[in-house]
Amino acid sequence: MAYQLVCIQCGQKQDTSRYVLHCDGCGGLLDTKYDAPATSDARVVKGMRGTARYLPTLPINSPQNLVTMGEGNTPIVPLSRIGHELDLEVHGKLEYFNPTCSFKDRGNAVQVSVLKEVGITEVADITGGNGGHSFAAYCARAGIKYHGFPVKEGASERKVEAIGFYGTQMHWVDGDRVTAAAEVEKFSADSGISRMRYAQGIYFIEGQKTMAYEIAEQMDTLPDHIIVPVGNGSILQGLWKGFQDMLEDGRVKRVPKLYGAQTKETRPVADAFEGRNWNPYEGDATSVASGIGVKEPPRVEALLKALRESGGRPVTVDEESIIAWQRRLAELEGIFVEPTSAIVIGAAQELKRTGVIKGGETLLLPFTGFGMKEPLPQD
Amino acid sequence: MAYQLVCIQCGQKQDTSRYVLHCDGCGGLLDTKYDAPATSDARVVKGMRGTARYLPTLPINSPQNLVTMGEGNTPIVPLSRIGHELDLEVHGKLEYFNPTCSFKDRGNAVQVSVLKEVGITEVADITGGNGGHSFAAYCARAGIKYHGFPVKEGASERKVEAIGFYGTQMHWVDGDRVTAAAEVEKFSADSGISRMRYAQGIYFIEGQKTMAYEIAEQMDTLPDHIIVPVGNGSILQGLWKGFQDMLEDGRVKRVPKLYGAQTKETRPVADAFEGRNWNPYEGDATSVASGIGVKEPPRVEALLKALRESGGRPVTVDEESIIAWQRRLAELEGIFVEPTSAIVIGAAQELKRTGVIKGGETLLLPFTGFGMKEPLPQD
Repeated sequence: MAYQLVCIQCGQKQDTSRYVLHCDGCGGLLDTKYDAPATSDARVVKGMRGTARYLPTLPINSPQNLVTMGEGNTPIVPLSRIGHELDLEVHGKLEYFNPTCSFKDRGNAVQVSVLKEVGITEVADITGGNGGHSFAAYCARAGIKYHGFPVKEGASERKVEAIGFYGTQMHWVDGDRVTAAAEVEKFSADSGISRMRYAQGIYFIEGQKTMAYEIAEQMDTLPDHIIVPVGNGSILQGLWKGFQDMLEDGRVKRVPKLYGAQTKETRPVADAFEGRNWNPYEGDATSVASGIGVKEPPRVEALLKALRESGGRPVTVDEESIIAWQRRLAELEGIFVEPTSAIVIGAAQELKRTGVIKGGETLLLPFTGFGMKEPLPQD
Repeated sequence: MAYQLVCIQCGQKQDTSRYVLHCDGCGGLLDTKYDAPATSDARVVKGMRGTARYLPTLPINSPQNLVTMGEGNTPIVPLSRIGHELDLEVHGKLEYFNPTCSFKDRGNAVQVSVLKEVGITEVADITGGNGGHSFAAYCARAGIKYHGFPVKEGASERKVEAIGFYGTQMHWVDGDRVTAAAEVEKFSADSGISRMRYAQGIYFIEGQKTMAYEIAEQMDTLPDHIIVPVGNGSILQGLWKGFQDMLEDGRVKRVPKLYGAQTKETRPVADAFEGRNWNPYEGDATSVASGIGVKEPPRVEALLKALRESGGRPVTVDEESIIAWQRRLAELEGIFVEPTSAIVIGAAQELKRTGVIKGGETLLLPFTGFGMKEPLPQD
């Protein structure tokens, strides 16, 4: 299970005994390479499930450093009534069947395992959403002390309450996420406690790629299309990496087209895809889909590559569509998800309307977070 | 997958083409008998998971009537730090990895499948907790109209909000659960719409028994002890039935000792086990563990039998213990559950303290509901 971290810009190999986000030489972003034979048999640990099943292609050297609580191994269920409305064959992957009831647990299982493996016992980061909630849970399990910096204005009350419940030390920030980032930076510099910045690194994405491996094991025929919400874009990058791995070793013959859903108001990736600069508004993002409120995704080139090379594209929807489909999904299929998760159904409708996705084709939608993690939107 | 419903008192066979809770002859409670060969191979549908895997021993005649969304198939994870505190080898089964994030989804998948199979399209019942939430979700998926009767005072706001979100028609009740029961009765009599009363029937329990089948598939050696929260006692009955099935067909050689946790204040089963009549206080049950607030479990004889014949017993804990262990579980293991779920850890501590469970023995704790389904207790 040995692995290497390699700079995607200059190719320099990094020291994997440390927690490393950028190339020591040129500052570029990193990617992984594995010594494990690239065959589907060597990829899985038979009899295991979730993260533990895919350990040979995760950046963890010793199995005893794996911090896991059964994340992953989520079911795929048919959405026949939604499919009927859209004239597509639609399946949902219920990614909220996870320890903190969001998909972030896949990424954090790996992220926190790496922290444990390199010997980090105390960390700091901005907190307040599903990522922070999940990170708090895995830190608690690993015995790592987590300093979380939530913003006072606009934080999700339920999530912040949960984050604190795991024993996270909360440092409340009077201001927006930019202020919070500055405060974490200062805290980290003053104390010497590592700052996480999980969205910049490769570890979290490595955990997310297990979703692609599972899809290939669960479905006899891969779907034509997969639509995911895009904030930092870790699901999108994870899916792309996972499918690329399987394409290389012959486990799959083609990759589903990948689409990234954003809102019409907060659309950095959608605009970058068209070669335009998106001009962010002042303050924190305000979408009802809180999980995609990321104004500057740090690995945007990787996102564009995943969208382009898979044959997909970004798609934007309005706020009303998100709220309406959140309710329709519960009423028609019995599945209650967060607004961030519901964005993909409106995106499917839009792609169908514009002819990008055609009648009768197959579509997979990952549902990323449980509905009760946030209060209902007021409509 | 043919099955029979048989009265446990007089042995009379019932008509399975109807939704039936009690014996047509003597009014007794019912149990199931299956035509499927009692061998472990015939019990499972290979390659399937969750409810669909155990269809040959569920009361559903046609697979196309199965209403499922991936419930069951929940992970078992070690709780080494809790185990260290208790001097036991402790495992948790994370039953909140489910469509509505509680164990009730196992029971309702079967309950609602039966409704679909017998052709019921509209139902009414008291609502407001995890059972009602889960039932609302499965009714939505099956296209069955659900009339839910929540009480205005003391209802869980988050759960009632969720129940309504699936399109449940809400009939608010000004009063306690006794008033609510009377109002459902009247509504049902006036309208001819079936009343559910799931806690009295056998269907829900049949869904719960899949937990026992899974435990036997997941663990090389069965645990010495299993402790469950007891309200209506559906998990307890389900586990007992499932293990009995496997004992009969030789799949397992022994049954773990089963313990039912209640609070010192609301302890109908604990007192009945000792041959005492418990004198309920006025109004609805008020424990922080809302899920066990059942003052008159309808199938109490079946509960006592499961506890006695397995070699276990009831155990009661106080409110402070529930709240304290809810937090310790999050801090030590990264698992955030509802108070009702946390009751089993205090129960384990009590059984250990009194010598019923001995140092080094193995213990399995099902964690029945996700922590964010209720606001944090104010301590």
